[in-house]
Amino acid sequence: MRELTHNNLTILTDFYELTMINGYFSSEYHDKTAYFDMFFRRVPDGGGFAICAGLEQFIEYIENIHFTQSDIDFLRNKKIFSEDFLQYLKDFKFNCDVWAIPEGTPIFPNQPLITVHGPAMQAQFIETMTLLAINHQSLIATKANRIVSAAQGRTVMEFGSRRAHGYDGAIYGARAAYIGGIDGTSCVIADRDFGIPTLGTMAHSWVQMFDDEISAFRAYACKYPDDCTLLVDTFNTLKSGIPNAIKVFNEEIIPRGFRPKAIRIDSGDITFLSKKARKILDDAGFIDCKIMASNSLDEYIIRDMIIQGALVDSFGVGERLITAASDPVFSGVYKLVAVDSDDGIIPKIKLSENITKLTIPGYKCPWRLFDRESGKAIADVITLNDETIDDTQPYEIFDPDHIWKRKAITNFIAKPLQVQIFKNGNSCYKSPSVEEIRNRTKEGVDSLWDEVTRFENPHKYCVYLSQNLWDQRQALLAVSI
Amino acid sequence: MRELTHNNLTILTDFYELTMINGYFSSEYHDKTAYFDMFFRRVPDGGGFAICAGLEQFIEYIENIHFTQSDIDFLRNKKIFSEDFLQYLKDFKFNCDVWAIPEGTPIFPNQPLITVHGPAMQAQFIETMTLLAINHQSLIATKANRIVSAAQGRTVMEFGSRRAHGYDGAIYGARAAYIGGIDGTSCVIADRDFGIPTLGTMAHSWVQMFDDEISAFRAYACKYPDDCTLLVDTFNTLKSGIPNAIKVFNEEIIPRGFRPKAIRIDSGDITFLSKKARKILDDAGFIDCKIMASNSLDEYIIRDMIIQGALVDSFGVGERLITAASDPVFSGVYKLVAVDSDDGIIPKIKLSENITKLTIPGYKCPWRLFDRESGKAIADVITLNDETIDDTQPYEIFDPDHIWKRKAITNFIAKPLQVQIFKNGNSCYKSPSVEEIRNRTKEGVDSLWDEVTRFENPHKYCVYLSQNLWDQRQALLAVSI
Repeated sequence: MRELTHNNLTILTDFYELTMINGYFSSEYHDKTAYFDMFFRRVPDGGGFAICAGLEQFIEYIENIHFTQSDIDFLRNKKIFSEDFLQYLKDFKFNCDVWAIPEGTPIFPNQPLITVHGPAMQAQFIETMTLLAINHQSLIATKANRIVSAAQGRTVMEFGSRRAHGYDGAIYGARAAYIGGIDGTSCVIADRDFGIPTLGTMAHSWVQMFDDEISAFRAYACKYPDDCTLLVDTFNTLKSGIPNAIKVFNEEIIPRGFRPKAIRIDSGDITFLSKKARKILDDAGFIDCKIMASNSLDEYIIRDMIIQGALVDSFGVGERLITAASDPVFSGVYKLVAVDSDDGIIPKIKLSENITKLTIPGYKCPWRLFDRESGKAIADVITLNDETIDDTQPYEIFDPDHIWKRKAITNFIAKPLQVQIFKNGNSCYKSPSVEEIRNRTKEGVDSLWDEVTRFENPHKYCVYLSQNLWDQRQALLAVSI
Repeated sequence: MRELTHNNLTILTDFYELTMINGYFSSEYHDKTAYFDMFFRRVPDGGGFAICAGLEQFIEYIENIHFTQSDIDFLRNKKIFSEDFLQYLKDFKFNCDVWAIPEGTPIFPNQPLITVHGPAMQAQFIETMTLLAINHQSLIATKANRIVSAAQGRTVMEFGSRRAHGYDGAIYGARAAYIGGIDGTSCVIADRDFGIPTLGTMAHSWVQMFDDEISAFRAYACKYPDDCTLLVDTFNTLKSGIPNAIKVFNEEIIPRGFRPKAIRIDSGDITFLSKKARKILDDAGFIDCKIMASNSLDEYIIRDMIIQGALVDSFGVGERLITAASDPVFSGVYKLVAVDSDDGIIPKIKLSENITKLTIPGYKCPWRLFDRESGKAIADVITLNDETIDDTQPYEIFDPDHIWKRKAITNFIAKPLQVQIFKNGNSCYKSPSVEEIRNRTKEGVDSLWDEVTRFENPHKYCVYLSQNLWDQRQALLAVSI
């Protein structure tokens, strides 16, 4: 693990979190407890679902919250915080309850991914880092899952560190990409810290360094005869790269008792070149030598390459995965949904000029209903927290925008999606390994109907509200507008 | 400063850097010295120029390179590195010479931003982090500069931490955005670590927390009477938010002897709402109360808002700046350009199936020519390193694609763009403050003709090759193809 504490990321937060909690501190809201939901509004790239990731880093942040003396001195210099408040920060002890949907779960807009209940000041303070951790990794896991899906079982490697948005962008990006389903990464530190398989052979500079291409290939083959992948496009893929590679395979690899592993093509029309390359390799007796492709790939290009018959075994995907280039914003938000009072839980709503920014008020619980026969996910339902869904009885769902459209679901299993991760501020959840999370992603995506997983115009998987929750929201809307 | 060393980012590198240098280690290339250039291929968003940033973090990385025992143990377990090589890593001492274009400089495709000369193994090893540091911050500085330009002198704040790609994405993103010209950030840690002005007032949750909007406004105004910005769109901007704000300004701010600072609008048609809001505020006697706008803004939306007469004084820009959403990849690459030999410097070229991936070989020097009268930048020229440009004489430039198109430049000043930052591995450059770098950006952009700075179809600012460099490249192309 990287040592977050040394970085002292406690005050990696938006300034308004501090002005707000300083405001609460000296008011009757000092001791108020509240409920916040983290949810997202829109699946990137117009997809049918997203993949949840980043929870382990969220937990690490919470566990390491600690205002150092230098943080306190820094804040004191702002001259807007009272000494009492600075002392409160110095003694800051997180004691909220937190529930979350585990990493690797397919998720849908508007359902609570993380729910925080506790002192309003604490629950407010963690907003920025909650969003930062979950938005980033969910974005990349979702993108990776699309790319892996496009590759239809072929190997996909993550090669994007150099184009990531900062160091964490590379490291946690590789983690998220692995959770999304890629097979490995070039990022060495992601192997050290998370055990993600790494791979890497040579850059063009290796080929250029030598007097000629064949000398470069020969030197590499002699050094790594049992794991030899050669980059064949530094000069001319078909005229020079592949013929030289075959010569070196025959002269350096085979005599040592090994088989060549692969060639890599990083430029040109890879679909065309891969077909030509396959034929040349096969004709030379290297039918087991893989063809690896890289160069600004993403799910759309990979899909089109496969449709056009590209003979590529392994895709190296860089910048467009690590930045989620086609849609690089994950729309997670963190909203107050209720406060506690002597009379019980008071739900809170945020209206908006934009209908899409309306919130779902209340302390809630997200469920997923699975078909008992096929195991496929039928729909999600959000209920009030004190409701349960009895899956021994038919359950009536209805379109929240057209409430006369109703149907009863039968023969299903209802599973709550969140698990508790902090109890009174103490962690009560052990993050699974990235390997386990990656398997969870695969199972979760397999449980979705194909219609939900296609890239273009996916079928909209529904997140319903229970009748009680819907009634409560309508009542609040009626009062507020 | 954040403590990079504690993070031990030394092996935040692509695995192939290690396989390659392990290959060089046990060959005649052990002691070879080489030249690498970092340059970029394409200005994001089709713009006319980019802004260079991230050099300070690049320097920090180099100064902190240190393979820990646990790194060595980790690499040993890969079972492909010899003990001699692992010992070499353990004793790793960087002693290259490095030259770089200072942060805040407008930069153009294909010119060397960073040039590294030294042992091939060392110069190769630093590739990934060189690119990671410079690509990320140059991307964000460039985007920020576009947004600031669109705002035409109005204040621009960076609010994107929650949507950044990881922690560094937020922190160094805020740094780069400030270099690009924004006026401040919401990111507290960017203030602590870099002295970037921070700002932040309230979220919707503050308004929701109270029994009603006016109580929320009143509580905030009483707490911060001298710095009161109220978020007015939680329920209804025109019907509720602004009337309540005015009431609170009159009842809580004015009696205390202060003036209200601003209102913020975060949803709806902000152009329309801002005009209405301005009139209501003016009519109430608050002509000095600013209007701040946020909600998925970028340079295009800001430009259109201003064209349509939006009366916004200050823009809060979040996700689309911190992710450079419209084009989130900065195309920096790091290429071998020459090796030393007993016979002198041998230039190295990389051909490619893609013409745009052709490199400019040789040990080179980038220059900028300024018009002596206007101070405006005329063109950049790349020369061989041992050439100088004598600006007391006319200097002939020519289009590298149409070499018969030639003209002589007169009455100009020639300035080399790079400065030396490491000498035999020792830092010989002190990074300026972000404030100084931000001023440098402003000066640099002011030195460009308007035609180069427009968003759509900007005039192409030319980067010429000297006759000697062009001749050398042609000779290499002739031999290699």
